[in-house]
Amino acid sequence: MAADNSNAEQRFALIKENLAEFLNEEIIKKVVDEGGHPKIYWGTATTGRPHCGYLVPAIKMAQFLAAGCELTVLLADIHGFLDNLKAPLELVMHRAEFYRYTISTLLGAVGVSTEKLKIVLGSSYQKSAEYVMDVYKMASIISEHDAKKAGAEIVKQTDNAPLSGLLYPILQVLDEQYLDVDAQFGGVDQRKLFIAAKEWLPKLGYKERAHLMNPMVPGLHGGKMSSSDPDSKIDLLDSPETVAKKIKKAHAAPQVTEDNGLLAFIEYVLLPASGLRGKKEFKVERERDGLETLVYEDIEKIREDYKNDILTPQLIKPAITRDLNALLAPIQEAFKNNKEWQEIAEKAYPPPPKKEKKVKNKGTRYPGGGKPEEKALPVRTNGDAPAEATEAAPSAQ
Amino acid sequence: MAADNSNAEQRFALIKENLAEFLNEEIIKKVVDEGGHPKIYWGTATTGRPHCGYLVPAIKMAQFLAAGCELTVLLADIHGFLDNLKAPLELVMHRAEFYRYTISTLLGAVGVSTEKLKIVLGSSYQKSAEYVMDVYKMASIISEHDAKKAGAEIVKQTDNAPLSGLLYPILQVLDEQYLDVDAQFGGVDQRKLFIAAKEWLPKLGYKERAHLMNPMVPGLHGGKMSSSDPDSKIDLLDSPETVAKKIKKAHAAPQVTEDNGLLAFIEYVLLPASGLRGKKEFKVERERDGLETLVYEDIEKIREDYKNDILTPQLIKPAITRDLNALLAPIQEAFKNNKEWQEIAEKAYPPPPKKEKKVKNKGTRYPGGGKPEEKALPVRTNGDAPAEATEAAPSAQ
Repeated sequence: MAADNSNAEQRFALIKENLAEFLNEEIIKKVVDEGGHPKIYWGTATTGRPHCGYLVPAIKMAQFLAAGCELTVLLADIHGFLDNLKAPLELVMHRAEFYRYTISTLLGAVGVSTEKLKIVLGSSYQKSAEYVMDVYKMASIISEHDAKKAGAEIVKQTDNAPLSGLLYPILQVLDEQYLDVDAQFGGVDQRKLFIAAKEWLPKLGYKERAHLMNPMVPGLHGGKMSSSDPDSKIDLLDSPETVAKKIKKAHAAPQVTEDNGLLAFIEYVLLPASGLRGKKEFKVERERDGLETLVYEDIEKIREDYKNDILTPQLIKPAITRDLNALLAPIQEAFKNNKEWQEIAEKAYPPPPKKEKKVKNKGTRYPGGGKPEEKALPVRTNGDAPAEATEAAPSAQ
Repeated sequence: MAADNSNAEQRFALIKENLAEFLNEEIIKKVVDEGGHPKIYWGTATTGRPHCGYLVPAIKMAQFLAAGCELTVLLADIHGFLDNLKAPLELVMHRAEFYRYTISTLLGAVGVSTEKLKIVLGSSYQKSAEYVMDVYKMASIISEHDAKKAGAEIVKQTDNAPLSGLLYPILQVLDEQYLDVDAQFGGVDQRKLFIAAKEWLPKLGYKERAHLMNPMVPGLHGGKMSSSDPDSKIDLLDSPETVAKKIKKAHAAPQVTEDNGLLAFIEYVLLPASGLRGKKEFKVERERDGLETLVYEDIEKIREDYKNDILTPQLIKPAITRDLNALLAPIQEAFKNNKEWQEIAEKAYPPPPKKEKKVKNKGTRYPGGGKPEEKALPVRTNGDAPAEATEAAPSAQ
């Protein structure tokens, strides 16, 4: 592919769009400038069930694909298994399969080519002799203190926390090398780990990678969200009616733009998704009030109108419902037409055996809908974890 | 083999002899009572060079073999490599080979059959997928606090210590399962780790093992010993003259039996070694004083005479020199006749490139001649580490 500088600029701008931070961006810039395909990876532990919170990183990943990046999605099945040793390995494998279907369909659904998408199981290389020697090596040169610091925002920091919490940062750093990528993508809650990756990999003679970070965005419901509330999360397979009902219930104070999950969803999911389809826009119909439809092309104007009460929660909610349902429709269509996926869903999320259990917070490797705002980062205690097996049986209502 | 109870009693007594502690001894007793061969393992990291301090665990292991045990010696080469990442893996492999020759020859030299001796390299299984999954699993159920506690006496306990210090207890515990043994043997400094092994293995569904512990014995020189003093350690390949010279220099206060490395060497090496050859005895010649030779059959009488100044350091040193040289003679003979071993020695311990470096204390997995007394256990800061490559070039002087 010949280098095309004007195109390169557009590609790089799309890669950067909406990011909170971008470390070593020159690494990616260089590949783009040379007309190449930057290799980026994003990891998720296959512990729960992907819900609408996954749309935030997914849309960013769709932008990477649209910008000609090679995207690797790491399904961290070993981590998933280890996070809940009570669940048999088989269940975790089924969930990994479910994630695989969901993520590839989801990325395809926003209209980008998934030709450069690679989905890799952690277990496919994290048990190899080479990888393990590197885990041992890294553990012998990284101090307990540094491992703890690296995981400070994504690992429980108590003395009683399992040792794995100190081991996982090492694995996540090595994954950059073993997935052979130029960059890792995650939420800004991964920042300390990304900084560690930059410092640690060269100690084993491996190259430093770039790091792309999404901001922490509040969930659709805004602010704190209880994972025990079945309405608090929108499943990717929820029916249009269920979606409408859940969004109707979403808490959003009029005129308050801070920590507003509805506005965040427009900014980080709906606007960029429409951009990927050709034209960035968000329409708000006001037929009922006898007013013309508002058409927005950027979030700033939306925020301004929201502050001035031109845009109210009542006006915005149906618009979000309409666009989210449009986004989910091809996923649900694909699910309905895929017998294997349906079977995997049943195996991955069997009916709840007993009362649900509270899931611990796991950072953006386990991205969710209930993320606190960026400024609320230091201690993250609200439940942004994906739904547990015991929480919701799969359904294509 | 038919059960022979009187023999079983003798065998079990020999297994127990001189131990400081024996946890779950019923496990071993049962195997012995049934006429079986208890499987015991002892591990050592192949970091340095085996010296006379190794005779203490080696004699105990010879007793295990004499009592019909199956003995596995784990050469922890991965640990050795990781302890000093500056040394190329190749060097560590050569050292592991050197250890293999030395240990098998040493055990053969005391006259026991090495038919039931198995020498295993850590790298032969510690990188396998199964083992690694168990390391991950164990790390996810063992707390940082418990891992730290388990390694309290054998791992440096600072915040800046490498993470491997918390990981190694997990490996050492899993080794019991993967080496398929009934028991692990080590010094009492391993006690907390052994207790952890008892508790941790059942958590993965593995059985609890027995643990046999040698007391901590002072080095031949008694009390503190500097690893930078080339005379402080007796190499297994030192010439009879060098041995005589080094023992002559050994510090031992007359009449003081506490922390007395000479007496400890008689108790834990020379008396049991003679016992293995048929008759437990230690002879002290007094020709020069025109007195008859003293013949001892137990350490109590030796201690008593030492306290009463009947046995002086001047009398005891030549007797120890004589017996130690007799013990080393077959090892040196074997070395002289083994071209391959000589070549490995040259590769494993190349001439020092620069000034020697202080080696950190590593517990009885790295047994040495300068061990503090049992009561001095809690903090072990004196240099009982094996000689560094930079310390002594191999020689069969």
